[in-house]
Amino acid sequence: MSVPATVKLLFHSDLDDPAAWIPHLRREMPGLEVEVWPKVADPRDVDVAFIWTQPPEGLSTYTNLKAILALGAGINQLDLASLPSGVPLARLVDPMLAAAMADYCLYAVLHYQREFDRHARAQAERRWNHTLPRAKDGFRVGVMGLGEMGGTAARLIAGHGFPVRGWTRTPRTFAGISCFAGDEALGSFAAKSDLVICLLPLTAATRGILGKPLFDRLPAGAFVVNAGRGAHVVDADLVAALDSGRLGGAMLDVFREEPLPSGHPFWAHPLISVTPHVASFGDPRSATPQVVENVRRALAGRPLLNQVDVARGY
Amino acid sequence: MSVPATVKLLFHSDLDDPAAWIPHLRREMPGLEVEVWPKVADPRDVDVAFIWTQPPEGLSTYTNLKAILALGAGINQLDLASLPSGVPLARLVDPMLAAAMADYCLYAVLHYQREFDRHARAQAERRWNHTLPRAKDGFRVGVMGLGEMGGTAARLIAGHGFPVRGWTRTPRTFAGISCFAGDEALGSFAAKSDLVICLLPLTAATRGILGKPLFDRLPAGAFVVNAGRGAHVVDADLVAALDSGRLGGAMLDVFREEPLPSGHPFWAHPLISVTPHVASFGDPRSATPQVVENVRRALAGRPLLNQVDVARGY
Repeated sequence: MSVPATVKLLFHSDLDDPAAWIPHLRREMPGLEVEVWPKVADPRDVDVAFIWTQPPEGLSTYTNLKAILALGAGINQLDLASLPSGVPLARLVDPMLAAAMADYCLYAVLHYQREFDRHARAQAERRWNHTLPRAKDGFRVGVMGLGEMGGTAARLIAGHGFPVRGWTRTPRTFAGISCFAGDEALGSFAAKSDLVICLLPLTAATRGILGKPLFDRLPAGAFVVNAGRGAHVVDADLVAALDSGRLGGAMLDVFREEPLPSGHPFWAHPLISVTPHVASFGDPRSATPQVVENVRRALAGRPLLNQVDVARGY
Repeated sequence: MSVPATVKLLFHSDLDDPAAWIPHLRREMPGLEVEVWPKVADPRDVDVAFIWTQPPEGLSTYTNLKAILALGAGINQLDLASLPSGVPLARLVDPMLAAAMADYCLYAVLHYQREFDRHARAQAERRWNHTLPRAKDGFRVGVMGLGEMGGTAARLIAGHGFPVRGWTRTPRTFAGISCFAGDEALGSFAAKSDLVICLLPLTAATRGILGKPLFDRLPAGAFVVNAGRGAHVVDADLVAALDSGRLGGAMLDVFREEPLPSGHPFWAHPLISVTPHVASFGDPRSATPQVVENVRRALAGRPLLNQVDVARGY
């Protein structure tokens, strides 16, 4: 379909580099003008917002917005309640985003199964720690959330030879993966997960799910990987479970406050690996077609791809 | 074919646990008696030696040996010159051995491509280092050696989406991998390898190959992974190349002296990850059939599977 000669896009992100996006967007849509916050000539002229978070002053002055396109697969970084009502919101479901996430998760699985964490600690003590690891088929991986992210990660890890089980809020089936659903199945899911990976959306029902009750059901010495959202973790419960030996280690990519404050106990904990929200990242090359398609849909007043049900929260 | 009622096997290894092997060996060959060094009733009764290294006193008192089966894919840990002459020697080519090695290499590739090394250093300084990594298709992996180990690793890494090139002493072809061969091609192989993995056999021609001339041909900031043998590396050249910024990091699993001496500079170097010779390990479950077959062949005087050409060195 045709596109108006000039379309104005607001870009706002602390994490993403507009220079990485603009050439790809303009190649697909030559009439696109990208205004990188805070250099916005007139907010009333902006058609579509392409943002990680809202600008600090909010979006209320952008009175002609036809769509808000999130710069991520999750939208919890946005303050949903303060978004302009009636403007459709879409998540960015970039195939590369899920592939990058799956690689992060596979790396974390190999890190703990092959005991690279122990080798790094031994190296710091100049200690030759020659122990042979558990075989892959004895290292059971539990994936929480089997959406675009979790499903891709679960498939990659299972294809790599690890036994994989999955847990979701509502029942799912997934070839090659033992599926568990709902609160009542969480304990039996956890009981045989030597490593759990959280890739759930953050909702009222999943907030704090990585806390003492779950940790107490995991096998002794199990590992926790969180690449969902920071608020999935009860920070004090995690530190306590590591300190008591209940858990063997944690790799965390997301935090309740980001950047993780320099005084936070996670930084210096010997059993925690902190990564700075890099498990997954949009790749302009693979994501541009979806962004451009959603700009076209917004201008035409059609439903967006991957439009968010704001009430459900994802 | 039939097997004598009793066969005696000598087991000697500092690295491998005889208790992990004996049940599997005896299940396949009930008449097998395993004598774990130093508890050997009479060396003259031993039919086959299954060893990582020679026992300290050598094998000269084992006067009826029909075969020496190495407990590894490489045989450089054995002092070939002092082995009893005329006794055939075989490497252990366990399919799991190559799969475990390939996983180690894939882990190392993800470690550097996804900048987990930089994130760990940032964590030590409580620094939020949010940078996005190079895309996989821009992270070129060079594999040196395309035998059982190198070929399996190259296939896994290429299948995972990384561009892979291979280098061998003598020309090889390998689907999906750009192959280079011989000394004259080593420079052009290196020039486009953002990370090199050494999985070569150790011979006079490959000793010290991971040294200044090679490092100088790699792209600036390239990474080196050595899971071949310790003597492939010129230790001082590696430290100098890391200190000068020529190389960005190294992951090393094998060393000229093992265990790595506590005073060795590799231990404390911030750009070196030391792992204690765990990149690959025999799995008794998958390797037992080959060991038992070679015991049968030895008793029958037939050539062994994976028999070593001692003059060639592999």
